[in-house]
Amino acid sequence: MDKILRIDVGASGGPRVTIADMGDYAGLGGRGLTSAIVNAEVPADCHPLGPENKLVIAPGLLSGTSAAMAGRISVGCKSPLTNGIKEANSGGQGGQVLARLGYAAIVIEGGRQGDELYVLRVSKDGATVTADESVRMATNYQLMEKFQPEYGSKGAMISIGTAGEMRLSAASIAVSDVEGRPTRHAGRGGVGAVMGSKGIKAIVLDGTGAEVHKPAHPEAFKAARKEWAKGLAKHPVTGQGLPAYGTNVLTNVINEAGAYPTRNFSTGQFEGASKISGETQAALEVERGGTATHGCQRGCVIKCSGSFNSKEGLFVTKQPEYETVWSHGGNCAIDDLDIIAEIDRLDDDYGLDTIEMGATIAVAMEAGVIPFGDGQGAINLMHEVGKGTPLGRILGSGAAVTARAFGLEHAPVVKGQAMPAYDPRAIKGIGVTYATSTMGADHTAGYAVATNIMKVGGDVDPLAVEGQAELSKNLQIATAAVDSTGMCLFVAFAVLDQPETFQALVDLLNACYDWDLDADGVAAFGKKVLSFERDFNARAGFTPADDRLPSYFKREPLAPHNVVFDISDEELDTVFA
Amino acid sequence: MDKILRIDVGASGGPRVTIADMGDYAGLGGRGLTSAIVNAEVPADCHPLGPENKLVIAPGLLSGTSAAMAGRISVGCKSPLTNGIKEANSGGQGGQVLARLGYAAIVIEGGRQGDELYVLRVSKDGATVTADESVRMATNYQLMEKFQPEYGSKGAMISIGTAGEMRLSAASIAVSDVEGRPTRHAGRGGVGAVMGSKGIKAIVLDGTGAEVHKPAHPEAFKAARKEWAKGLAKHPVTGQGLPAYGTNVLTNVINEAGAYPTRNFSTGQFEGASKISGETQAALEVERGGTATHGCQRGCVIKCSGSFNSKEGLFVTKQPEYETVWSHGGNCAIDDLDIIAEIDRLDDDYGLDTIEMGATIAVAMEAGVIPFGDGQGAINLMHEVGKGTPLGRILGSGAAVTARAFGLEHAPVVKGQAMPAYDPRAIKGIGVTYATSTMGADHTAGYAVATNIMKVGGDVDPLAVEGQAELSKNLQIATAAVDSTGMCLFVAFAVLDQPETFQALVDLLNACYDWDLDADGVAAFGKKVLSFERDFNARAGFTPADDRLPSYFKREPLAPHNVVFDISDEELDTVFA
Repeated sequence: MDKILRIDVGASGGPRVTIADMGDYAGLGGRGLTSAIVNAEVPADCHPLGPENKLVIAPGLLSGTSAAMAGRISVGCKSPLTNGIKEANSGGQGGQVLARLGYAAIVIEGGRQGDELYVLRVSKDGATVTADESVRMATNYQLMEKFQPEYGSKGAMISIGTAGEMRLSAASIAVSDVEGRPTRHAGRGGVGAVMGSKGIKAIVLDGTGAEVHKPAHPEAFKAARKEWAKGLAKHPVTGQGLPAYGTNVLTNVINEAGAYPTRNFSTGQFEGASKISGETQAALEVERGGTATHGCQRGCVIKCSGSFNSKEGLFVTKQPEYETVWSHGGNCAIDDLDIIAEIDRLDDDYGLDTIEMGATIAVAMEAGVIPFGDGQGAINLMHEVGKGTPLGRILGSGAAVTARAFGLEHAPVVKGQAMPAYDPRAIKGIGVTYATSTMGADHTAGYAVATNIMKVGGDVDPLAVEGQAELSKNLQIATAAVDSTGMCLFVAFAVLDQPETFQALVDLLNACYDWDLDADGVAAFGKKVLSFERDFNARAGFTPADDRLPSYFKREPLAPHNVVFDISDEELDTVFA
Repeated sequence: MDKILRIDVGASGGPRVTIADMGDYAGLGGRGLTSAIVNAEVPADCHPLGPENKLVIAPGLLSGTSAAMAGRISVGCKSPLTNGIKEANSGGQGGQVLARLGYAAIVIEGGRQGDELYVLRVSKDGATVTADESVRMATNYQLMEKFQPEYGSKGAMISIGTAGEMRLSAASIAVSDVEGRPTRHAGRGGVGAVMGSKGIKAIVLDGTGAEVHKPAHPEAFKAARKEWAKGLAKHPVTGQGLPAYGTNVLTNVINEAGAYPTRNFSTGQFEGASKISGETQAALEVERGGTATHGCQRGCVIKCSGSFNSKEGLFVTKQPEYETVWSHGGNCAIDDLDIIAEIDRLDDDYGLDTIEMGATIAVAMEAGVIPFGDGQGAINLMHEVGKGTPLGRILGSGAAVTARAFGLEHAPVVKGQAMPAYDPRAIKGIGVTYATSTMGADHTAGYAVATNIMKVGGDVDPLAVEGQAELSKNLQIATAAVDSTGMCLFVAFAVLDQPETFQALVDLLNACYDWDLDADGVAAFGKKVLSFERDFNARAGFTPADDRLPSYFKREPLAPHNVVFDISDEELDTVFA
């Protein structure tokens, strides 16, 4: 895993492939590598869809090894949604296969010539790029039908649906899962639009001959690996809650806390929550012959996913996650899991971010395009997006553009990106993360919900002002480090609560790379990654004025607690002071 | 002219009217007053369509006097298009009537309650606000039909069409002309959307009993007034060029210079220019029984306007201005004056900025929505906007949103606002103004075209780098001052070239207000206005990174000179250093 594969789509005569060693980027992986390359090579003032932008796809530092949970893949670029730096990461098989083929990153760069669409194929023997007219306006599942015979069960596919091809700002990049399905997504920030702007429709990874990455110190690695798996198994969240109900275990929890954004963030509790909760969902999945416990990649021991079948017992989609169930469910006042699952399937198929799309449809509902609660209407809107009708292009451009087109103030966005499934007025720690993250509103950038609600990694009152900035800051630093390892972020529950599990993660890195990291070194690494991102954003024109929630969150109280977001600007500015 | 009329649309029980004296704002007018109020009273981080924003409508310092050309009216707010401060100004009768009724400004503020629409009536006896369901989705000409019997020939109307009511970002505010028609617009920056967000559909100004503003020193004023009119009459641009052909005299001039943005700024000359030039237009107008020489307000001595009739001799619209003929003409590869006039009428009727709409339709043409040159297609698109279809909502949100929805890099905008009719690569001085103006891309903010092309106020080579920043800076300062006087900006040609005409303007202000201004004082005043605006924008999050042209203007050469915009960022930053 020491090579960088570059595709210059602007080369005369068609895309040109080059392979080089890591050079100055040695020692980086995942988000650390994508953010380093974007910061160093992409002019901050460029247009996200222009020739100067680059799309960087990088497995984590531990991807390709035999460590559990290490197969996440990061996608970085300048974001068409936020106009700042972006790292979106995904599960699925892509990270492991790419790493085991020896690549630390794929960099897609240059200005597309003409409007041909290309398929990139990567194998142990190198890479080729081929024009392929047959993929035009193909959806992700159609691409699966076409290419699964090639990538089979050992390989993987990274692809964009119609939304990315149309360069819509809510477009995701799909990564195939254990079954080869395009159900895992680098969802946020419109990374799919950047891939579309380069004319690359699919990346087919041939896993033949891919080899497990060998650590520098095999015995030490093996010991750390065991401790690591043990730590994940014994923590109640990673060992019990997530396996049993998936992330959707949170619906009841967040609703109970009065922080469940309902009807476009107008209230904090949804009357239909129990009908779409993780408990209800898991029972339904099992009842229909699906499963409520499944991993999105080999080597996963948490298995927070599952499969959602139709009433007839046919596969519809992977188990929709909490944020998806929220965005297309409570936030739109839809309490029907079959509707939500169908929309999740459409998100995956057209290649759209479920959070952005749910937030956007709720804005459209407030605008009166369809009523709140109209499930079939929401499905119809998804098809408008996937087919690129004018209404679909508004919605596919995200919540901020949709609010703009309909003349509404109520766009729940930061830096142009829609807020996820936690109202920042009632969980103020996550509000600090939404406001200050380099990524725009993003729960995964510093998941203060863990400490505010689940009391993991400490206990900070969700409604208090005090302590939230410090909490968010530390979580953002830790997350930037974790996102560089290739580890699924869910390991954080065990890592934050169990010192020996944190140490096992550090030991894995040290054994793999012959490093001598300690806790301070991990924090320094996280800070370095954030500094790449802050540096880029500053040059792109971001200021403290961008590290704010929309003013209506400070003005309009949220029921049932009737609270506003009251963390001061000065306090927010301490996060990156 | 010493009172400020405030309408709080958020008051319980319906909009509340208060009238107060100028207080701290004494000595300000026009843009100086709107920018002072917006900077002082509007939180820079507010949403442009939210309750914290304010719409300020202010005649100039000399409006209401007997001085020629002094009837411009400024409209200020936080802009939904740029998210920065905005001043858009308009001709027509509104400025003179409002000033003569004794008002220095109308401030519309507060958060609209419900969705009722209101009509504000202002007379010498005060002001009333009345809910009026009959105006819902009325166009500006429909409002004229309804209210002209009230405002008659002595009054005026300030109104929004359907675009403003729908709060679209390209919506303008119409000001009625000498004939009472809604042909004059505070066009730029979506000020109409802000008026729509307040629920005020029309302001009917009853001119009965309005009195000419009496200067502090009548004799000195009278002498200055004569010198003023004489100076305007003797300059070739204001005394001959503009009266004869209107602003559209520029089509041939700018096309000849290779700076006429054609087909969405892809080349600098239009093969159909002579078919839509000012010379052709004037001859056609006269031939059809219209006129090519007409003032938009009483007291105008330049008379750059005219009336455009149909083949049958019926009034279609006022003489479309150069920027309108360009935006809907050459920029869209349309070379038919009848088509352009019909679109101009639709802009006025639906209440849309002609520059933004033409730039937007050209973007849509590049996206393939309709072909370049498709005049009937462009007319159809205008109706989509005016009726608020999904496609219309994209287009009515402006060029930046349209490019975003269609996944294009080629959005010719700065700070979200479309560039006007001069390509910044071939007239680099105007490029500096586009980049650095507080207003977003705006030719009127510092019209370097005058010096680059017409050699007014000096001679700076349009293709040279040197001298452009200094030129733009001085023009921006002078313009901020002129925009505060209520004077039509076209006086600048004579003011820049003729010291005695500049002095006459200073004498008018001194005689009117018992001031002792000199040239330095005028510059200081202009700088003060710009400092209000820069201060607001900085707090709204603008940085030097916003004072830039889109990167493709630095990368893609413009024919026929094959030039890029090559003024360095450092040079741009000297303008407001």
